[in-house]
Amino acid sequence: MFTSLVGGGRSKTRGMVLNLIRAAGTISRVELAASIGLTGPTITQVVRELMGEGLVVEVGRGASTGGKPPTLLQLNPPACYSVGVLFERNLCVVVLVDLAGRPVARTSFQGTALMPPDQALPVLASRVDGLLATSGVDRSRVLGVGLVSYGPQDRQAGVLLTPQPTDEWMGYPITQRLSEVLKLPVLLDNDAAAAAIGEYWLGAVEPGSVYGCIYMASGIGGGVVVAGDVYRGTSSNSVEIGHIAIDAVNGEECGCGNRGCLENYAGPSAVIRQAFTTGGLGQRLGLDPAGTDFLTGFGRIATAAGAGDPVARSLIEASARLLGTAAVTMTTLFDLDRVVLAGPSFTAAGSIYQSVIQEEVQRRSFARRLHPIEVVPSVNGSDAAAIGGAVLVLQSELTLLRLQR
Amino acid sequence: MFTSLVGGGRSKTRGMVLNLIRAAGTISRVELAASIGLTGPTITQVVRELMGEGLVVEVGRGASTGGKPPTLLQLNPPACYSVGVLFERNLCVVVLVDLAGRPVARTSFQGTALMPPDQALPVLASRVDGLLATSGVDRSRVLGVGLVSYGPQDRQAGVLLTPQPTDEWMGYPITQRLSEVLKLPVLLDNDAAAAAIGEYWLGAVEPGSVYGCIYMASGIGGGVVVAGDVYRGTSSNSVEIGHIAIDAVNGEECGCGNRGCLENYAGPSAVIRQAFTTGGLGQRLGLDPAGTDFLTGFGRIATAAGAGDPVARSLIEASARLLGTAAVTMTTLFDLDRVVLAGPSFTAAGSIYQSVIQEEVQRRSFARRLHPIEVVPSVNGSDAAAIGGAVLVLQSELTLLRLQR
Repeated sequence: MFTSLVGGGRSKTRGMVLNLIRAAGTISRVELAASIGLTGPTITQVVRELMGEGLVVEVGRGASTGGKPPTLLQLNPPACYSVGVLFERNLCVVVLVDLAGRPVARTSFQGTALMPPDQALPVLASRVDGLLATSGVDRSRVLGVGLVSYGPQDRQAGVLLTPQPTDEWMGYPITQRLSEVLKLPVLLDNDAAAAAIGEYWLGAVEPGSVYGCIYMASGIGGGVVVAGDVYRGTSSNSVEIGHIAIDAVNGEECGCGNRGCLENYAGPSAVIRQAFTTGGLGQRLGLDPAGTDFLTGFGRIATAAGAGDPVARSLIEASARLLGTAAVTMTTLFDLDRVVLAGPSFTAAGSIYQSVIQEEVQRRSFARRLHPIEVVPSVNGSDAAAIGGAVLVLQSELTLLRLQR
Repeated sequence: MFTSLVGGGRSKTRGMVLNLIRAAGTISRVELAASIGLTGPTITQVVRELMGEGLVVEVGRGASTGGKPPTLLQLNPPACYSVGVLFERNLCVVVLVDLAGRPVARTSFQGTALMPPDQALPVLASRVDGLLATSGVDRSRVLGVGLVSYGPQDRQAGVLLTPQPTDEWMGYPITQRLSEVLKLPVLLDNDAAAAAIGEYWLGAVEPGSVYGCIYMASGIGGGVVVAGDVYRGTSSNSVEIGHIAIDAVNGEECGCGNRGCLENYAGPSAVIRQAFTTGGLGQRLGLDPAGTDFLTGFGRIATAAGAGDPVARSLIEASARLLGTAAVTMTTLFDLDRVVLAGPSFTAAGSIYQSVIQEEVQRRSFARRLHPIEVVPSVNGSDAAAIGGAVLVLQSELTLLRLQR
């Protein structure tokens, strides 16, 4: 579904060279040749091609190792761009990032609620068009769009495999239609996986790190990255931490088929429900008991907790404790060195989740004595998934080697 | 800690060629060159070298594609061997496998119980020596020993990081000392990871499969294989499914630091405990309430369940249901296409675990509608971990490319 757009002469070597330059920040041709195991003349030729297309630039000289100091190369961030779109019922975020993965423009809106896809996609497309127009970035420099959303989904086919938010979305050719409207390639991926890879791309983790991400917006998802690659599993529907059982024995049935799922006890909709049965908090905060905008309702409870409301704080802490339990399961199974908390619901609740989850992980994870397991907020804040969607477009461009194997 | 023994001329190409021949069964030089992306003359040279060392043999001709039918190559199974040792308190299994990963000799004994390592390792070594002597295999053809056991462990350093079965084992240089006694290289790995990779090596799964293994002996462990590579995580202490919480809220504290761990509710020691509080089953079967040989005690309950004892059957089914719950967590997080049940405790209980776990996974896993998730017994039966240990030695030899990156 996604076709590479940058220039001709595409090759594995080219992708490897671009990715190495990106990861290094600055690097000399000699270092490139050594890292990649190719001859000097081959590297020189590939670099000449990439410089000719404006993707790579020379940026001065490095330290001499005896002879003439080597010229350093780096990516040319404004050479090309990609768009990331977070799509969920109550929130859409559109970001434009440069070749270095840094956001240069952003917009968000409240989402397309219960619109069927035929109505929602033109709305989404007009927002992307609007952002591109005001950004001043030439459309020909935009590699594509990374649309990220919840699962289950068929990433290859570019369709959601769930009747959310309405029946019409199930199996709808979402990437194909959005691509037709925008005249840009579109890829589909999981929001939590996107949030996870964004962390790596922006240099917030060590290159070899095996880390996880818990993503909380209206629901709860997860992603794991192994040394720069998203852990995919059989069908890219992995790390669905919102749907692991925290009470498998007595838990309620969940729409996913499982019983006692984390999301139904600790997710935003559950916390809102609890606010109506705990000290009249829901009424006091003026929440809508029948509302479906869980982001806004949860945000009010989180804000109240941060402001010192003891009832709100107890609900958020209870949610955090359950997320901590699930994080322990995740770290014990994946043997992670870090858990990143990403998404608007974590952002809304400040550091409460971080401290409680860190405490649980540090006390209960199987490998906690063998290596540290840090719990940290995402460097990309509440836009982590959208930025990650844009990064996945860049990554599919720069690491064709990996995608092709 | 583990040094390769086979011949000189070691190279990445050599490892890749050996591994491709192994995976293919039989393959021509032309197919090899195409798969590996090398020129015909290079492949011819490497194959000549491998044939010279007796590792590869010609086995007739394939189908013609127009010209002369190509000569087919395959591994020469008796060219070299490796030893796998399952070490746990109540059971040790020693196997000798050929280059194709097929067991050619085996022995087992009841384990070294509470012996400290200085006493236990000579006992283990004498069993390995004995098996090699009676097998008729020349010791010079043995590549090394894969010793597999429970975690946590430091695989690189070759030490166990738990004071089991006695304090002296914690941090004891187990691979180094065993290697000194046996005069063979020794590697250490996780028993469940070994059981998992054995399945792949012996051709029981598709090459690209992402599958998991639950390993039950005295305790419960797990392993995941992604397209032929063991999923390692940060420190190779991953997939510890026996120590994920099935009752995080009200569960008892476990020695591992977590609460409500699966192993304490569904593992052999838990089932034995339950047998004394359920219908006098423990007394009836003559189990020792203070015994530590959980394998034998659990085996008796499993046998009684298989013979139709309703109390025994209800205990085994309850254990299976809880394992099913944990298997759902594992499949939902790792997005697996298969769960293999390996180890002596599953073997003892026949098909009860398989059918109950299959039912849970098929009903509750997040990705169950996207692809089948099969629950199957290991092709290597109760020796799966020991055979896997031997296979890990072969794999470290044949896939040096992967290990070196």
